[in-house]
Amino acid sequence: MSASDCVFCKIVAGHIPVTRIYEDELVLAFLDVGPISDGHTLLISKQHFARLHDCPVELLGGICSRLGKVAKAVTAGMNSDGYNVLCNTGRAAGQLVEHVHFHIIPRTSADGLLSQWPAHKYEEGRIEQLAAKIREHI
Amino acid sequence: MSASDCVFCKIVAGHIPVTRIYEDELVLAFLDVGPISDGHTLLISKQHFARLHDCPVELLGGICSRLGKVAKAVTAGMNSDGYNVLCNTGRAAGQLVEHVHFHIIPRTSADGLLSQWPAHKYEEGRIEQLAAKIREHI
Repeated sequence: MSASDCVFCKIVAGHIPVTRIYEDELVLAFLDVGPISDGHTLLISKQHFARLHDCPVELLGGICSRLGKVAKAVTAGMNSDGYNVLCNTGRAAGQLVEHVHFHIIPRTSADGLLSQWPAHKYEEGRIEQLAAKIREHI
Repeated sequence: MSASDCVFCKIVAGHIPVTRIYEDELVLAFLDVGPISDGHTLLISKQHFARLHDCPVELLGGICSRLGKVAKAVTAGMNSDGYNVLCNTGRAAGQLVEHVHFHIIPRTSADGLLSQWPAHKYEEGRIEQLAAKIREHI
């Protein structure tokens, strides 16, 4: 399955060149041309799905099973201190290309990336209310 | 496998109470008590691994195969516009508990979360140099 107007489908098909890191029957990994750190990599599904939760369960497992291998190589190759794996779903979450992809972002201490983390506490009783709403959809 | 001093292993064992969303043989999902948005959920491996790339490939696939189901329920229950799935690996990347876990963060338009994204461009030739370093480790 592919979408004719999808830039990532065009990359998978070889119609748009990228700097490839890894490829197999399920995924393609290549360097992001607009990185937020050196070595910032995208791991994408070869098959087209707009959103993470559109992927059939087994296929999602197969795609994600490659994350460890690719992230380990990215962090080793870049000699980084760690990495973030990030999948944005929906425009509100920063998803710019509607084709499932994971960012693998090498990190170094004090690089200041993704440091915005405004954690708060719930008022008493609220966490159970929210959990009940979510459980209705499981 | 569990680590006796690991807070997430204690949660899996039921020694520390949490607000559970979903559980099966591989994963446990519960609400983060220090959320950055309402409904912020953690999906954790039941088995203890410090880092994403420590997980055996098939087990990692199994764990991640649950991400779609849980994220779909979180975003539906919270009536959000999207979500981020985020796995931090290493202290430099923001990993505070050394036990593999994925943040599922419901998002609404203009909530301002994770908006820090300082994308840049590589100088000519550099992207190929970095890719070569990474490929050595694949």
